[in-house]
Formats: sequence, structure tokens, C-alpha cells
Amino acid sequence: MRAPDELRALVESSLATMGLHPSLAGLEGPMRYALGGGGKRIRPVLCLATAEAAGGRAEEALPAAVALELVHSFSLVHDDLPALDDDDERRGRPSAHIAHGEGVALLAGDALLAEAFRLVLMYDRPEPARELAEATLGMIGGQYLDITGADVALADLHALKTGRLFAAAVGLGLWAAAVAEAEQVPWRAFGEELGVLFQAMDDVMDGDGYASELGEDGAREVVGAAARRAHERLGALEADTTVLGELVDGLAVRVS
Amino acid sequence: MRAPDELRALVESSLATMGLHPSLAGLEGPMRYALGGGGKRIRPVLCLATAEAAGGRAEEALPAAVALELVHSFSLVHDDLPALDDDDERRGRPSAHIAHGEGVALLAGDALLAEAFRLVLMYDRPEPARELAEATLGMIGGQYLDITGADVALADLHALKTGRLFAAAVGLGLWAAAVAEAEQVPWRAFGEELGVLFQAMDDVMDGDGYASELGEDGAREVVGAAARRAHERLGALEADTTVLGELVDGLAVRVS
Repeated sequence: MRAPDELRALVESSLATMGLHPSLAGLEGPMRYALGGGGKRIRPVLCLATAEAAGGRAEEALPAAVALELVHSFSLVHDDLPALDDDDERRGRPSAHIAHGEGVALLAGDALLAEAFRLVLMYDRPEPARELAEATLGMIGGQYLDITGADVALADLHALKTGRLFAAAVGLGLWAAAVAEAEQVPWRAFGEELGVLFQAMDDVMDGDGYASELGEDGAREVVGAAARRAHERLGALEADTTVLGELVDGLAVRVS
Repeated sequence: MRAPDELRALVESSLATMGLHPSLAGLEGPMRYALGGGGKRIRPVLCLATAEAAGGRAEEALPAAVALELVHSFSLVHDDLPALDDDDERRGRPSAHIAHGEGVALLAGDALLAEAFRLVLMYDRPEPARELAEATLGMIGGQYLDITGADVALADLHALKTGRLFAAAVGLGLWAAAVAEAEQVPWRAFGEELGVLFQAMDDVMDGDGYASELGEDGAREVVGAAARRAHERLGALEADTTVLGELVDGLAVRVS
């Protein structure tokens, strides 16, 4: 059972050495730029930790974990574009379209998404790729609700925009560990709690979302309640979930 | 063996009735707008015709065929955006970002791509989805070469930007007809000819690409030579390729 930092190193090494599709040629630079910049790799680490807790090996979950990070990165590149959030900076660096131009950033985002599917399709069975497709569609639907200011509860918006990819991180870890579908249910109940936990903490740090709606203390209560539920879900599993518990605590107290 | 028009009707009906992912909610309208507008459905029809010629049933190839059209549609929506080709019209109608706004068009394109993978993942085996991922990456790589004006031969550019999706139409038809990989080789040689045939004819009509490079007559010679090679490839197959031959002739004489 490897600690979060060891799993993160595994993700970084896999990202650094993975071969992108040869046809992408000059897009590789912008894609790697978007993947760099010090992301915390929370989703892929969660995927690997789930696989290990469920009795699998992190290495078997690596293609799925890296695919998750590619989908996350695709969403950031497109969300930062002027047509959406119009953010010039991402993690203290120029965002992809500032560094590489809008057209190239748009294509780099598209390529990250397609490459994610190529990667997750390395498995012999289609279920991991199906899980990734469903989660990606949910995330895009959430982003649509967000930009159109639809009249929808914050919890429902976050469940799509953030929650679906977190839940998929757990789901993909389970597929990689060859956990039968019927036995995945209690693990998935844990995964469902993580999106709201992550997003509410994000809102505390950014002073928006839950923090606007409920005040900072209210948002922190959302974080605490989600963390408690997540720990309860872990407690109900017959598995060594120590590392997953550490990840929950890390999400609930993170400062960046 | 159904005629091209019958296969086209099958594609239209499948597009009209397919259920999009429920999370997409309000994006469904923009996505269906992008899929409408009188496209000729050449790629999905080619996919279905290949499946039938190879001894399968068109219905079995429908998810793959529709997925191809979704990928094609995604590429048009993104290519029309101001950051790329900046086209306000598509098939005589306002392009997606004019009709629905840039942000929504960007997300609708993303959703079309992810939905294409969800669809092609309905098969029990991962090969069709792998084929779609490879082709999509090639197409995106080709679009990158196109917008950056890279010093690359027109034939190589077209082989990626247009050819990969045409070749995948043949490949997906073969997978749907359960043709073993080793037996796919001569069929794929046919598929390789279609991209250049289609694109050179497109250039004749638009007066660019091959028509700029070789003049209209020169571009028409490229069309004729590709059509002859395609017919030769079909002649080498032990199958009834009448409908595929009709499609080749249709591509070589089309007026729109």
C-alpha cells in the first residue's frame, strides 16, 4: 500500500514518459504544457489508491489514472479560453491559449480528450472507457449549466462539473483492480462524496460557490460533513483504506 | 445489399432518435443543430455499406456509423470557431457559434466528441473505439498542420485531416461485420484511397488545395486516379462491392 506521494510520483513519471499519438506532431508541446505546471494529480492518485485498496496493483490502474488527468487537463484548457472563463493564468503560468494561441489551445484540448480515450482503451474490456465517457459527458453538462447560469442547486452543479470525474477516479480504480460490478457499490458510495468535498474546499479558498452562498464557515461545514461521510463510507469497506482516508483528510485541509 | 439512399435514411433515422446523455440537458439543442443542416452523411453511409459488403448487417454497424458522424460534426463545430477558420456559415446556415454563442458551441463540440465515444463503446470489444480514437487523433493532427501552415505535402495533410476518418469508416464497418483483423488488409487498402478522392473533389469545388496547386484539371486528374485505384481495390475483394463502387462514383462526380 503506497503513500499518496509515492502514487503521485508514479503518475508524474507516467505522464512524462507516455508516448502521444505520432500524428499529433507539433501539438505535443502545447499538450505537455497544459499537463505541466504543478497540478496536484488528485484524480489519478485517487484512482491508484482505490485500485490498491481494492486489492489491485497501482501499475494496472495507471493508464486509466493518466487518462483521467488528460480529461481534467482538456477541461481546464477549454474552460480557460476567452469564449468560456477567459482566464489568462492557470497555476501561476500563462494559460494554454496565452502561451500557444487560441486555435492551438482549442486543438490541444481536443487532442487531450481523444488521447485520454486512446489511453483508457488499452484495457481489454470496454468498461473503463465507458466510465470515462459517461463522466466526461457529465462534466461537460455541468460546465454548460455553470456558464449559462441555469437555475440549479449548487450541489447538483458540482455533482456534475466536479463530482463526476472524482467518482470516475474511484470507478476506474475498481475496474483496474478487477472488482466485480456488484461489489463496486459501497466503494462508489465513497466516490460520490469526494466531488462535493473537493469543490466546497475550492469554494472556501476562492471565496465563491458555497462560500458565497453559505459564508466561509458554512462552506467549511459542507467540507467537514462530506469528509465525515467519506470516512464513514470507508469504514464500511472490508479493506485497508488507510491511504484513501489520508487523501480525504488532505482534500479537507488543503491550502492550494 | 441496400442502396446508398436507403443507408442514408437509416443514418438519419438513427441520428434523429438517438438518446443523448441525460447530463447534457440544454446542450442537446446546439448538438442537434450541429448535426442537422443537410450533411451528406458520407462517412456513416460508407461504414454501413462496408459492413454489408463484408457480410454483416448495416444495423450492427449503426452505432459506429453514427459515432463517425458525431466526430465529423465535432470537428466542423470547432473548425468554424473564430480561433480556427472563423466561418460564420456552414451549409447555408449560421454556424453553431453564430447560432448558439462561442462558449456553447465549444462545449457542444466537446460533447459531440465524448458522445461519439460513448456510442462506439456500445460494442463488447474495444477495437471499434480504438479505431475511432486513432482516427480522431490523426484528424486533429491534420487540422493542426493546416492552421499552422506547416511545410508538409498536400497529400500528407489530407491523409490526416480527411483521410483518417474515411479510412476509419471502412475499418469500423469491418469490425461491425466481425471481419478478422488479418482479413481486413485488402479492405483497408480501399479505404485509404477515399480520403484523397473526397478531398481532391472538394478542392475542385472550392478552388483551393489541389486546385490551387495543380489547377482545376490537375485536381480532377487526382480525383480520377484515386477513383480508379479505389475501383481496383474493390475489384480485388471477393465480395459484392456494387454499392461501395456506387459510393466511389458518387464521390468522384458530386456537385456539392
